Amino acid sequence: MDAHMKKKNHKMIKTDILIIGAGPTGLFTVFEAGLLKLKCHLIDALPQPGGQCSEIYPKKPIYDIPGFPEILAGDLTKNLLEQGKQFEPGFTLGERAETIEKQEDGSFIVTTNKGTQHHAPIVAIAGGLGSFEPRKPAIEGIADYEDKGVEYIIKDPEFYRDKKVVISGGGDSALDWSIFLTDVASEVTLIHRRNEFRGALDSVEKVGELTKAGKINLVTPAEVKELHGEGKIEAVTVVPKDGEAFQIETDHFIPLFGLSPKLGPIGNWGLEIEKNAIKVDNSLNYQTNIPGIFAIGDVNTYPEKLKLILCGFHEATLMCQAAYRIINPGKRLVLKYTTVSGIDGFDGSRKEAPKAVVQAIN
Amino acid sequence: MDAHMKKKNHKMIKTDILIIGAGPTGLFTVFEAGLLKLKCHLIDALPQPGGQCSEIYPKKPIYDIPGFPEILAGDLTKNLLEQGKQFEPGFTLGERAETIEKQEDGSFIVTTNKGTQHHAPIVAIAGGLGSFEPRKPAIEGIADYEDKGVEYIIKDPEFYRDKKVVISGGGDSALDWSIFLTDVASEVTLIHRRNEFRGALDSVEKVGELTKAGKINLVTPAEVKELHGEGKIEAVTVVPKDGEAFQIETDHFIPLFGLSPKLGPIGNWGLEIEKNAIKVDNSLNYQTNIPGIFAIGDVNTYPEKLKLILCGFHEATLMCQAAYRIINPGKRLVLKYTTVSGIDGFDGSRKEAPKAVVQAIN
Repeated sequence: MDAHMKKKNHKMIKTDILIIGAGPTGLFTVFEAGLLKLKCHLIDALPQPGGQCSEIYPKKPIYDIPGFPEILAGDLTKNLLEQGKQFEPGFTLGERAETIEKQEDGSFIVTTNKGTQHHAPIVAIAGGLGSFEPRKPAIEGIADYEDKGVEYIIKDPEFYRDKKVVISGGGDSALDWSIFLTDVASEVTLIHRRNEFRGALDSVEKVGELTKAGKINLVTPAEVKELHGEGKIEAVTVVPKDGEAFQIETDHFIPLFGLSPKLGPIGNWGLEIEKNAIKVDNSLNYQTNIPGIFAIGDVNTYPEKLKLILCGFHEATLMCQAAYRIINPGKRLVLKYTTVSGIDGFDGSRKEAPKAVVQAIN
Repeated sequence: MDAHMKKKNHKMIKTDILIIGAGPTGLFTVFEAGLLKLKCHLIDALPQPGGQCSEIYPKKPIYDIPGFPEILAGDLTKNLLEQGKQFEPGFTLGERAETIEKQEDGSFIVTTNKGTQHHAPIVAIAGGLGSFEPRKPAIEGIADYEDKGVEYIIKDPEFYRDKKVVISGGGDSALDWSIFLTDVASEVTLIHRRNEFRGALDSVEKVGELTKAGKINLVTPAEVKELHGEGKIEAVTVVPKDGEAFQIETDHFIPLFGLSPKLGPIGNWGLEIEKNAIKVDNSLNYQTNIPGIFAIGDVNTYPEKLKLILCGFHEATLMCQAAYRIINPGKRLVLKYTTVSGIDGFDGSRKEAPKAVVQAIN
């Protein structure tokens, strides 16, 4: 361990496999690594595990997960968390992996945008289509108000308890959070540049009811054009399509214009990139051009690649075997079937098939 | 189509992808092929789909299917059948794929041990560890009685309605079928060379109860040593470990000594074999050395191969894309996500995620 590491040791998270991206592929890696007695820690820019499945379409059915004729994306996330939980994964959520430094011993230190440091011999990038960055409205000076009343993602609704909020947007997120926050915030205003919303019928109707009941202050068609406040948001200027601009006092302005995926800082890690994805060796174990760094799931590319969740599961599984060999050089690895050997959790739990008895009949 | 084919055309089964082996990998192939509008037909030596999962351990939990913290092997089979059923797969069950002939147009004719012929442009071998061949007891002349009162696998219990049966064996199959047939056969004798049975506690206890109730005639420790009958089984000679040999009249003798996997006739198809598995190109799409023949799941081998069900799912999926391109040369294939596009079954069914509405709120 070098001097640099010792210095920062007090806040260093250590693990065997550092997984960047807590979507389905990342979550399943925890399970497969655990079977090999390897511990995992996951970093994700989103505030909860599940990736797109949780953030973008939790209530949409997926039909092509093997063995599930139909499963809601949110339920798949729940199941994968449950499947891996005995292997006690760690999480750094709501932070984006920003930099990576290779150590002399071949291990890596990955630091997030908030300065959290992680140290591991193996890095598995399971970043999906990239980190989902919110689409930001083109309002002058909005960057100055970020984390000072302007939020693009709602991480914890309790944060808005008894506050005035202005939400902007016309999709499911804007609809669903407006509905949810009527029970939390002291005042909810929903602004959309069209009259028409695009979302689940239920949500559109519910917003209509809450508007009639005076619980949502609906302003359409209109746009937020200016932000006001000293050091934090105090009001926004709303410009209706056909009408006079006016100000609304508010504690928060939350534009929910969707997320768009960006490979982000990982693109600068020296990895071979092709078509916005990381090239890996699919003839072996999905390692990138940097030994010890693997890329699995939608974030990688190779000949005949398919961006399907089920392919990520396979890639994660083969990658874990390679990780084991790097971490335990020379040690023999025998594949054990869970049906035969059961599973020993890091938490002391044991899952096991009912054993056959050997017994005489008298 | 050549003369040879025309001659036998009346009994030729035609399909897009002929799958050899109806285990989990073969069954999931039906689904992935269906998404690409390709039709599948499956051949399996076992009398029902599911492969090992159904035949050997239907009641054992599997812990490493992604998204299932635990699933019984039999339930996995059921789910996979359900997932693929709208694509209307065909089945040739209880027959073993025996020979393959490449046609001039590059397609294949596969014939089973019972003479059933199948014609397809693509053959996907999903044969698992091979076809499961029953272990046969070393009794003189037993081969002459096969299908004449001697059966090593119970295909249809109704076949034994009101018949006398002698079952031999000491494991789960022998126990479970003895129990089941007490309600079907007129007389059930269970013979085992030891006093001790190896099986689920429930089954061992149940056989004990049925023996006490006089519904199972239990003979241990003893072995069947001779078979008697003209043209079909009429009696067996039983030799107890410590006692005098005696005869039992019976219509059927069913030795259930387990199944052992054999690559079997596929081993003679000109495919490159390594360690009893078929070599495939994992850097592309799991094609064998013979273009148009693929091998997926436990039956194949490549660098870093893991014999896991979840790997078979991935291999099947990539293989289907290659099959599509061979069947539809030059046609562009765009990956559609089931969550977005839904699924159109060959049976006219449609699965679809609830659509968003675009609607004004008044």
